[in-house]
Amino acid sequence: MSSVEIRPQNYSHAFSPYLEPIAKVRPGEKVVFRTDDAFGSLITSESDLPGTVLAGKNVNPVTGPVFVEGAEPNDTLSVYIESIEPARDFAVSCFISYFGGLTSTQATRTLQEPIPERTWIWALAMGAGPEEKYLENKDIRVRVPWKPFMGCIGVAPPFEAIASTTAGPWGGNMDCPEVRPLSTVHLPVYKEGALFSVGDCHANQGQGELCGVALEIPSQVTLVFEVIKGKKIEWPRIISDDAIMVVGSARPMEDAARIAYAELVLWMEEEYGFTRWEAYELLTQVGGLCVGNMVDPTYSLVASVSKQYLKRS
Amino acid sequence: MSSVEIRPQNYSHAFSPYLEPIAKVRPGEKVVFRTDDAFGSLITSESDLPGTVLAGKNVNPVTGPVFVEGAEPNDTLSVYIESIEPARDFAVSCFISYFGGLTSTQATRTLQEPIPERTWIWALAMGAGPEEKYLENKDIRVRVPWKPFMGCIGVAPPFEAIASTTAGPWGGNMDCPEVRPLSTVHLPVYKEGALFSVGDCHANQGQGELCGVALEIPSQVTLVFEVIKGKKIEWPRIISDDAIMVVGSARPMEDAARIAYAELVLWMEEEYGFTRWEAYELLTQVGGLCVGNMVDPTYSLVASVSKQYLKRS
Amino acid sequence: MSSVEIRPQNYSHAFSPYLEPIAKVRPGEKVVFRTDDAFGSLITSESDLPGTVLAGKNVNPVTGPVFVEGAEPNDTLSVYIESIEPARDFAVSCFISYFGGLTSTQATRTLQEPIPERTWIWALAMGAGPEEKYLENKDIRVRVPWKPFMGCIGVAPPFEAIASTTAGPWGGNMDCPEVRPLSTVHLPVYKEGALFSVGDCHANQGQGELCGVALEIPSQVTLVFEVIKGKKIEWPRIISDDAIMVVGSARPMEDAARIAYAELVLWMEEEYGFTRWEAYELLTQVGGLCVGNMVDPTYSLVASVSKQYLKRS
Amino acid sequence: MSSVEIRPQNYSHAFSPYLEPIAKVRPGEKVVFRTDDAFGSLITSESDLPGTVLAGKNVNPVTGPVFVEGAEPNDTLSVYIESIEPARDFAVSCFISYFGGLTSTQATRTLQEPIPERTWIWALAMGAGPEEKYLENKDIRVRVPWKPFMGCIGVAPPFEAIASTTAGPWGGNMDCPEVRPLSTVHLPVYKEGALFSVGDCHANQGQGELCGVALEIPSQVTLVFEVIKGKKIEWPRIISDDAIMVVGSARPMEDAARIAYAELVLWMEEEYGFTRWEAYELLTQVGGLCVGNMVDPTYSLVASVSKQYLKRS
Repeated sequence: MSSVEIRPQNYSHAFSPYLEPIAKVRPGEKVVFRTDDAFGSLITSESDLPGTVLAGKNVNPVTGPVFVEGAEPNDTLSVYIESIEPARDFAVSCFISYFGGLTSTQATRTLQEPIPERTWIWALAMGAGPEEKYLENKDIRVRVPWKPFMGCIGVAPPFEAIASTTAGPWGGNMDCPEVRPLSTVHLPVYKEGALFSVGDCHANQGQGELCGVALEIPSQVTLVFEVIKGKKIEWPRIISDDAIMVVGSARPMEDAARIAYAELVLWMEEEYGFTRWEAYELLTQVGGLCVGNMVDPTYSLVASVSKQYLKRS
Repeated sequence: MSSVEIRPQNYSHAFSPYLEPIAKVRPGEKVVFRTDDAFGSLITSESDLPGTVLAGKNVNPVTGPVFVEGAEPNDTLSVYIESIEPARDFAVSCFISYFGGLTSTQATRTLQEPIPERTWIWALAMGAGPEEKYLENKDIRVRVPWKPFMGCIGVAPPFEAIASTTAGPWGGNMDCPEVRPLSTVHLPVYKEGALFSVGDCHANQGQGELCGVALEIPSQVTLVFEVIKGKKIEWPRIISDDAIMVVGSARPMEDAARIAYAELVLWMEEEYGFTRWEAYELLTQVGGLCVGNMVDPTYSLVASVSKQYLKRS
Repeated sequence: MSSVEIRPQNYSHAFSPYLEPIAKVRPGEKVVFRTDDAFGSLITSESDLPGTVLAGKNVNPVTGPVFVEGAEPNDTLSVYIESIEPARDFAVSCFISYFGGLTSTQATRTLQEPIPERTWIWALAMGAGPEEKYLENKDIRVRVPWKPFMGCIGVAPPFEAIASTTAGPWGGNMDCPEVRPLSTVHLPVYKEGALFSVGDCHANQGQGELCGVALEIPSQVTLVFEVIKGKKIEWPRIISDDAIMVVGSARPMEDAARIAYAELVLWMEEEYGFTRWEAYELLTQVGGLCVGNMVDPTYSLVASVSKQYLKRS
Repeated sequence: MSSVEIRPQNYSHAFSPYLEPIAKVRPGEKVVFRTDDAFGSLITSESDLPGTVLAGKNVNPVTGPVFVEGAEPNDTLSVYIESIEPARDFAVSCFISYFGGLTSTQATRTLQEPIPERTWIWALAMGAGPEEKYLENKDIRVRVPWKPFMGCIGVAPPFEAIASTTAGPWGGNMDCPEVRPLSTVHLPVYKEGALFSVGDCHANQGQGELCGVALEIPSQVTLVFEVIKGKKIEWPRIISDDAIMVVGSARPMEDAARIAYAELVLWMEEEYGFTRWEAYELLTQVGGLCVGNMVDPTYSLVASVSKQYLKRS
């Protein structure tokens, strides 16, 4: 299998049909993306506070767009995640004024003072086992396992250009830990070549991404694309070894939940031999529903069902 | 250890300080509650449609209130769940007009027609192993494991009487699968004797309780109470073998998420030696956030953290 | 016409079927209610800060319940508001920690510090005209006209007892300025005698009741009840000289809007000779939709239509 | 005063920095914009149903962008609305599947069937007075006065291209009836020349734009621009003869309300001599808060205060 490396000179900050592709890739080949961290690597020590360092800068750089040969509108782009390797020996997190899950924000406004800014450095270290890595902050002193995923993954929307901080039907900044190695992500294709971008890798993240900033780390991501011709989907899907999932992104959060579950019902109807009402009933009893992020311009929720429940007796 | 059985002649339909206790129980003794299903056992076949059978009736009967000796306002009531045993060989679920997660409702109004009413009977059967039970519906033909929990558990609010269909700081209809055997639930005490009630057992349930009705089944629940004197909590907590959790109930859903995580931050600050900001940062990386229900008058979200992350190196 | 005065010895703090009526009144007679202010008159100077003065106390005392003769479940209680007279020469407003429209709250939680507590005294004075009164605060120095209404008005719910700080189908703490003299409020009757209560008069209030506390003032309210036999309504209605209105109370705010407008569509269908779809279309072009409160446990929105649009050419 | 006419050959469907200006205009001159209706004039009779006629088409065409000389980032663009004249003798409204205020939508998903599609034609006619026009539909037979405004008005965002169906800090599809002749709208400038567009005129509209489609009519809009150098604002403002207003657009609706009122508080602090807390208190008593739209991708709420309350005694 051939392999291509995408190492951008400039990162982009939007999922956009107005950006020139930085590379062309073919279905089936390994494509290695170098991704920057959410802050363009500008925060590297506790004394780098986001309000100062990031002033006037766009965040969440993504690598792309790449043009996937053969992808056309109304196809589905399948993205297999082979691996994510760290490109730095530490991750950063920080508290940003008026951003996060337990503060008022630019969207949920109050007249209160912000919580204090702070930067947290998490060193990446090797654990006991050969494959075992973990992160640790010197003050918190709790070992967090290396369990990486991509916060941002998506394609160009039909005619809008949307900041890479936002999520929607095109993917984007979903911040869902389920977008991890050995899983496959399905995305709708709106434009010739799909115009795929990826970035914002997290060394690990809790559900909700509570303070708004996970363990941000530049990385090397190895992906393999396939194009599913003539298959039209409405929202991003994730297929892991043992489950199928849909990511819905919206506000308020119940709208994200409704989208995710409604799309999962329709998927089970189309491809797994259940009637719509059987799927609705079955997901009531065995569906999963977790929060990817509760901090971005749209919240992302993941509805899922284990593959074991997709086979009838 | 002594044991008491609570088998009510009449069920109640509220968490209320205005109800007379139906029994007195002592901390440390086993208390066995007979619970009815969410429909007062009125739905027992596919031809029992909820719009007909339940017309004008209150749903979600609870067993109680019981007076727990020694419990006083500003104490915490600890409820250890020893076991849940089925009292019927089938569970029921149904689609109710204008109720559920993928329909408009009395709260989220539209001018659309309802989705069709339907009742689903799930037979309870023995699996291969000695302890292994499962449920199966004749049309859906997927085995759903017996994994029971209590949908409704709570105490009397300070001066309001709230329907047993609703959840709040007093507990109530949280519909959180984490309220399961071998876990312990902590509830705030507002009234002398706590005035505890329980009901609405589910044979299993997906996250979100999508159609609004899980696998409803009359059951026998064995609980052991303790009173933690002088400890005041604001929202229900769950302690399992490997995690601590807080349940927040509110609308919109992000408010439930904020409550659950904010209370978990404060709990980690009070009892686990983290500063508030360390807890906020750590939960960002390792916290869990799942949806209990997305269908009741208030949505319930569960924020959690594994106990492994509560010990510093 | 006979007249009755209701001057309670103790106020209540809930809309509740568990309270004994403090008086019986007859349809058609004038009933004069003495109402306390939202803080039980405990705040009377700038140095009375709510965090200190109100600690551990219930707020929003209401006068009632009164038993209205002839009112039975599934009737509608009609309440004509004849007048509201001030019972004090000043009104109070204040900033309460974690309560209000531009602060995080107990429902919308953050880890931020509260905004500063503060009490504002607004003197009530006579204007130039014989009927003209206004309020003025010594620091703000802007004249606010005397334009009084009742923040709290409602009946006992069917079996819940709900704090008088909350609004719902039974009325309650809607904080809608449209509940003003010369208007008529329709409320559903759930219990024999309706069990009506009223309180929380405001000397004036902006839409939304932004900081959470309007111009609170003890008052004398003169009402006349009628019972509309056999007429069942779902949510409170207001009929003024020139408009009909429905108040919907819920969270998130769009749910309150949907309730208010959906009920107004159905009302126009039932009583004004429009089809459902004509009403939906007509309200799109001429409906009114304003915010009563954006601060209480449920938000209240008022959907309205001028009577001029209810007559076909 | 000079005058320019903008009559586009092609309309655009986004507020976007990627579009070439179709004209250059100077501050102070009258600029006349020809606007199309929300459906590109494709719906002109009852038999033109939106699901058929609009399939695959973008809606909400806007006229622009125009380059306003002298406008630079961090300036404010002032837009005085001199007049709106109808360019057709009827307006159209319609019910679109899964779009509107009393239906489930693409954002608020359910499994229900849509409400029936329908197109309503409203004839524009002359009333008794010389300036008096009204609209009437043959089935509804209620006269709705000609009270036109622009649903869409805005500038190019900094680097996103956003569909003209959406509203945000740049303006856009706010659908606020307050954007009417003789008022002035202030918009933030992000790009050289501001890149202003306008469209989506409504012959009239209720608050909330209930079914999602007001009285859509091609029009001729006469505007006069000014550039306020060095003045940076965060959200659109409206100044009428007797009030100042801020439009906040977000979901859920309470977030739009918080934005609108928070910005109004800050405006009163910056320009009208009130402290922040005086403004917060005063708006509690006299502020206005109405719903522009409850149907678009973001809801728009208008917070306002009468100019009479901006002068201290």
